[in-house]
Amino acid sequence: MAINPDACVVGVDFGTLSGRAVIVRVRDGAELGSAVHEYRHGVLDRVLPRTGEPLPPEWALQVPADYVDVLRTAVPNAVENAGVDATDVIGIGTDFTACTMIPTTADGTPLCELPEFAGNPHAYVKLWRHHAAQPHADRINELARQRGEPWLPRYGGLISSEWEFAKGLQLLEEAPEVYAATEHWVEAADWIVWQLTGSYTRNACTAGYKGIHQDGAYPSADFLGALNPAFAGFVTDKLDHPLAALGDRAGSLTKQAAAWTGLPEGIAVAVGNVDAHVTAPAARAVEPGQLVAIMGTSTCHVLNGSVLREVPGMCGVVDGGIVPGLWGYEAGQSGVGDIFAWFVKNQVPPEYHERGRDVHELLTELASAQAVGEHGLIALDWHSGNRSVLVDHELSGVVVGQTLATRAEDVYRALLEATAFGTRTVIEAFTGAGVPVTELVIAGGLVRNALLMQIYADVTGLPLSVIGSTQGPALGSAMHAAVAAGAYADIRAAAEAMGSVRRAVYRPIAENVQAYQRLYEEYRQLHDYFGRGANEVMHRLRAYRRDALGKAA
Amino acid sequence: MAINPDACVVGVDFGTLSGRAVIVRVRDGAELGSAVHEYRHGVLDRVLPRTGEPLPPEWALQVPADYVDVLRTAVPNAVENAGVDATDVIGIGTDFTACTMIPTTADGTPLCELPEFAGNPHAYVKLWRHHAAQPHADRINELARQRGEPWLPRYGGLISSEWEFAKGLQLLEEAPEVYAATEHWVEAADWIVWQLTGSYTRNACTAGYKGIHQDGAYPSADFLGALNPAFAGFVTDKLDHPLAALGDRAGSLTKQAAAWTGLPEGIAVAVGNVDAHVTAPAARAVEPGQLVAIMGTSTCHVLNGSVLREVPGMCGVVDGGIVPGLWGYEAGQSGVGDIFAWFVKNQVPPEYHERGRDVHELLTELASAQAVGEHGLIALDWHSGNRSVLVDHELSGVVVGQTLATRAEDVYRALLEATAFGTRTVIEAFTGAGVPVTELVIAGGLVRNALLMQIYADVTGLPLSVIGSTQGPALGSAMHAAVAAGAYADIRAAAEAMGSVRRAVYRPIAENVQAYQRLYEEYRQLHDYFGRGANEVMHRLRAYRRDALGKAA
Repeated sequence: MAINPDACVVGVDFGTLSGRAVIVRVRDGAELGSAVHEYRHGVLDRVLPRTGEPLPPEWALQVPADYVDVLRTAVPNAVENAGVDATDVIGIGTDFTACTMIPTTADGTPLCELPEFAGNPHAYVKLWRHHAAQPHADRINELARQRGEPWLPRYGGLISSEWEFAKGLQLLEEAPEVYAATEHWVEAADWIVWQLTGSYTRNACTAGYKGIHQDGAYPSADFLGALNPAFAGFVTDKLDHPLAALGDRAGSLTKQAAAWTGLPEGIAVAVGNVDAHVTAPAARAVEPGQLVAIMGTSTCHVLNGSVLREVPGMCGVVDGGIVPGLWGYEAGQSGVGDIFAWFVKNQVPPEYHERGRDVHELLTELASAQAVGEHGLIALDWHSGNRSVLVDHELSGVVVGQTLATRAEDVYRALLEATAFGTRTVIEAFTGAGVPVTELVIAGGLVRNALLMQIYADVTGLPLSVIGSTQGPALGSAMHAAVAAGAYADIRAAAEAMGSVRRAVYRPIAENVQAYQRLYEEYRQLHDYFGRGANEVMHRLRAYRRDALGKAA
Repeated sequence: MAINPDACVVGVDFGTLSGRAVIVRVRDGAELGSAVHEYRHGVLDRVLPRTGEPLPPEWALQVPADYVDVLRTAVPNAVENAGVDATDVIGIGTDFTACTMIPTTADGTPLCELPEFAGNPHAYVKLWRHHAAQPHADRINELARQRGEPWLPRYGGLISSEWEFAKGLQLLEEAPEVYAATEHWVEAADWIVWQLTGSYTRNACTAGYKGIHQDGAYPSADFLGALNPAFAGFVTDKLDHPLAALGDRAGSLTKQAAAWTGLPEGIAVAVGNVDAHVTAPAARAVEPGQLVAIMGTSTCHVLNGSVLREVPGMCGVVDGGIVPGLWGYEAGQSGVGDIFAWFVKNQVPPEYHERGRDVHELLTELASAQAVGEHGLIALDWHSGNRSVLVDHELSGVVVGQTLATRAEDVYRALLEATAFGTRTVIEAFTGAGVPVTELVIAGGLVRNALLMQIYADVTGLPLSVIGSTQGPALGSAMHAAVAAGAYADIRAAAEAMGSVRRAVYRPIAENVQAYQRLYEEYRQLHDYFGRGANEVMHRLRAYRRDALGKAA
């Protein structure tokens, strides 16, 4: 179709701590302006707002009104920064963290906005990194294994505590009154589209990856009832809803949402999507073998494959889960940038903070001067649990090798390396299962760290391509908006016109590849020792912590 | 004998970073005054002074002139602070870190003071914590095991890289020209007495514990020659010298030393001794079953036993090594306060430093508010290697269990606990070998930390007694000076009159004992996994570090 040369689309990326809107020109993907809005309540992991109700360990909640504030502020600010005429905007697309779940009434009102539930933690948004449903996930996995449920291998053999069913079962069993009041158990990715269009659309991507929707069906009522008789109706009562494909038009922008955003009423709103998955087309990574690692607080890996394979420890495989016509594979690392940020905040002494420099930059510079192995350390990157390939959020971080000579830059580098070893572990799981990986394409905020990038190339032995945009998810969402608005026939066409990537920016250095090979062997040995049952110390430490906190309370 | 009521003795304790002189009244042990002198060069672990010659990892050197400065400044300052008349001083006793070795000429001049050797690291003092002779210790142990050398079990089956022979073999093989010029390979404990008396006296304590002198003999020339033909004459050429018993009079204060110290020429100078061993009588712990833990940068354990037992992993057992008539057992932990200090310097973020409080006190206060197990961490206290029971200085620190919620006080408490688990491991080795431990007597600077003390009581399940003096080693040295001067018949009599201890100041709290039992089981499992060969990752990391530094150099 003919495209208005000035036509624009808006992509809005809802992250863990903030939402970002980007104005993108439809014809060439030029990013004309953007704006960020930080969530007022951030992540709730200690107490509820207002009531001060304390939260147990492993909890991570959010406040849905914070998401609407992104529509009210970041979108109009981005339009203003772009200097475009709002009437040239033909569509809006969104992506969200996942699996992030909201219990709502029939009309989509979050239960935490009802006065009777404002003091109940279970009425709030359970953020992706809410890890308190592990016992529920364990039961789901145990029962599914016993019964040989056919969907289990599609998720690497393990359903995550982060996902819709584990969080739903926790809701039922810990807050039956909130569960009873929940008319819809909604992905935040879909809830935000509901706010834009006024009607509920459930996207096929999260339904597949997080909602155990495979081959047209969810887990059976019989299976759910065996977990807990009161859970038998979970799918029919709370979850089931017609699915919409990625890039479809979910609906039109309502008058109210037009007022919030300053965009024209009635423009196309794309079906909800997930931050990682929209990034693949933004980086033109839509062919088999191109593994996109979206590296931010955590890392998501998305990879298209031409065949269906059951990959142990993967997050999931969904038909057309990334682009139509290919099997979309997903894996991930629960903590990456989060770990580096935790380290800088909690383990870096004053003299590094007093030099008037960004501490990450300073530590990176100091660590860059080291040869591989010089720090004498090996770390496990499980401070936020392990998503792939162990799928165990009760795991935790390890550092081995400290001496009285160990400095902050040493540990910092060991943590950077640990995340690279984690990525290599994921890649080996794919290739070992017959899903080849030939190129690593990096997106997300961490691409700025050249040392980190070189470490990833050296550890994986793969050339590293880098997405052209610094705002990959928002660009990808904007591309889906362009498809939803009819400007392109499909997401592949939009990727060709609007996406961008720089190929092989970092190449493996042979000497480092060799030196990292032996460190990676150490990582794998510790990985298997702590992660595969030889020593369940991490699980026991979590249990002792819960006991101790229970006594203290 | 009748004691002049005003008679005093001086005890001088030469520690890792400073020397401390204390003036003690002979009749009742009252500490009348003291003074500290910090070594100008501290510990050399990066570069040599003046030349800037870089030092390899694991090295730790000192400058002998710094020790003489203690005699010149701390002793007269202590006399002045005490307000006593120097003519009332009847003797001086000293104790030293061990095994701390100095290569000297025939007249005791340290080789580093000769112009031709000033730029050679091997000509300097090798401090106890110089750990670069591990390969040499490994060879000594391997050969001794093969040959079934009878002295090996007296050292728990392992000769430490810290001791006279390993350091001597390193000297021979890495700097044959310095080895050739070495007329005496002298314990610093004896070198300082040489400076006071003008003649060389070798004390029986370090000869036994550090010099492999057992049942009247050293390792044979045959054994030494099998290590390296050029090492066959090590004992006869460099080491052998008549031994003197603890509490004996080594000689009289020379005119020069009298000028340095301001003390009367000709007064009694006690035979050299070791910081840990002199502390036992200072704490009145001279009976079997009383384990004295001298807790400072490292911890030394000394324990008298009525029987000779071969205790696996002990540092050594020497007949009369602590007090005459009993078997003196020694064990130790290479890093304790050193680890806490390293942590505060290297891993504590600015907000803890900005409160105008001592950071150790602040972290202790915050950690005290926690229940046992609340932090969810377990650590291994091997940042400076493991002296007992693994006797392996290539081991290193571990922390398991970090999450994004882990704060500085959590890790700090885990490190305090790790050292307590280390002490319990030592105690269990003694009791398991038939050398019972019934009371834990704590001396050293760390007694001030009440949380640490309670943790030790809870982890060991033993009542904790605390030495009455804050200057235990110096007091113990002064007591030996009193014996050398003839004021008491023996060290037991001096302990009775001059020593002091508060009994059972900390008692185990039943609930904590139980909670620590399961954490201790985690510690032991990791201890054995990393320390007993299941995973030699720490040794490999050291080797990779050496490789990397070798390439960088």
